[in-house]
Amino acid sequence: MNVLGRSYDSQTCSVAGSLALIGERWTLLLIRDAFMGARRFEDFQRSLGVARNILTARLNRLVEEGLFRRVRYQEHPDRYEYRLTEKGIDLWPVIITLMKWGDRHLYPGREPVVLSHKQCGGTINDRRICERCGTELGPRDVAAFRQAGAPATGAPTAV
Amino acid sequence: MNVLGRSYDSQTCSVAGSLALIGERWTLLLIRDAFMGARRFEDFQRSLGVARNILTARLNRLVEEGLFRRVRYQEHPDRYEYRLTEKGIDLWPVIITLMKWGDRHLYPGREPVVLSHKQCGGTINDRRICERCGTELGPRDVAAFRQAGAPATGAPTAV
Repeated sequence: MNVLGRSYDSQTCSVAGSLALIGERWTLLLIRDAFMGARRFEDFQRSLGVARNILTARLNRLVEEGLFRRVRYQEHPDRYEYRLTEKGIDLWPVIITLMKWGDRHLYPGREPVVLSHKQCGGTINDRRICERCGTELGPRDVAAFRQAGAPATGAPTAV
Repeated sequence: MNVLGRSYDSQTCSVAGSLALIGERWTLLLIRDAFMGARRFEDFQRSLGVARNILTARLNRLVEEGLFRRVRYQEHPDRYEYRLTEKGIDLWPVIITLMKWGDRHLYPGREPVVLSHKQCGGTINDRRICERCGTELGPRDVAAFRQAGAPATGAPTAV
């Protein structure tokens, strides 16, 4: 393991900094849902099942932090959707590493969702590399499939 | 972006499951500190600066969750240290992706800490691959260095 000197200032740290922004559990769940296709308020609400006022506050905060942008998709009445910014899309590797850790330690041998490389059908490993063709993958390169036989309701609960 | 069917049960999800365990910000900071060499209670306390009773409760919880094991390193009086289990060590990719995201979005061009491949001195990328020799790296393969010229105190605060 690495050892930094005792003078290491643990507060000036990209890990700490990232967690200061996205360290609330629901933040990464909203980001996850966005990667799964959620855009509208109702999409997020259906997924997370939180009260509207709480969800509104959380989405607004993520817009302020630059992870989502709010885009009007309808006028009279105005309706908005939430799209990941580049900063938000860059959290994809975090989501993947969390997912792979959970696959291994919470659902060994029965991963709820499998991600595969759209082009060749290979599975993605925890370095986001296709295990079949070796391509380094990004969020637009993979499709997500719910595993047949995956548990219907999860032991670990969220939100 | 991926779109899962509407029937997708967002609670049976390795991301949600992982966050249920490690979704508290301080959890990953303790894991980070362990990767940085912290083992003893005082190491963690020096880094995080939290009250002893809070730190005790948090470390105990991580022991219960199987991320740390508590090992006696001295008798009369008994003294214990906290070592990462395999399950805890497996969080290294999560720490790296969080760090890389923070490097990019919070400290662009002035990363507080640089990780390099011990064997060849190359830097590690966000897929945990050495950018010089192409080796896939694990936590024991890298050394951490505080960047010269990195900010002395971080704007983002932790804990």
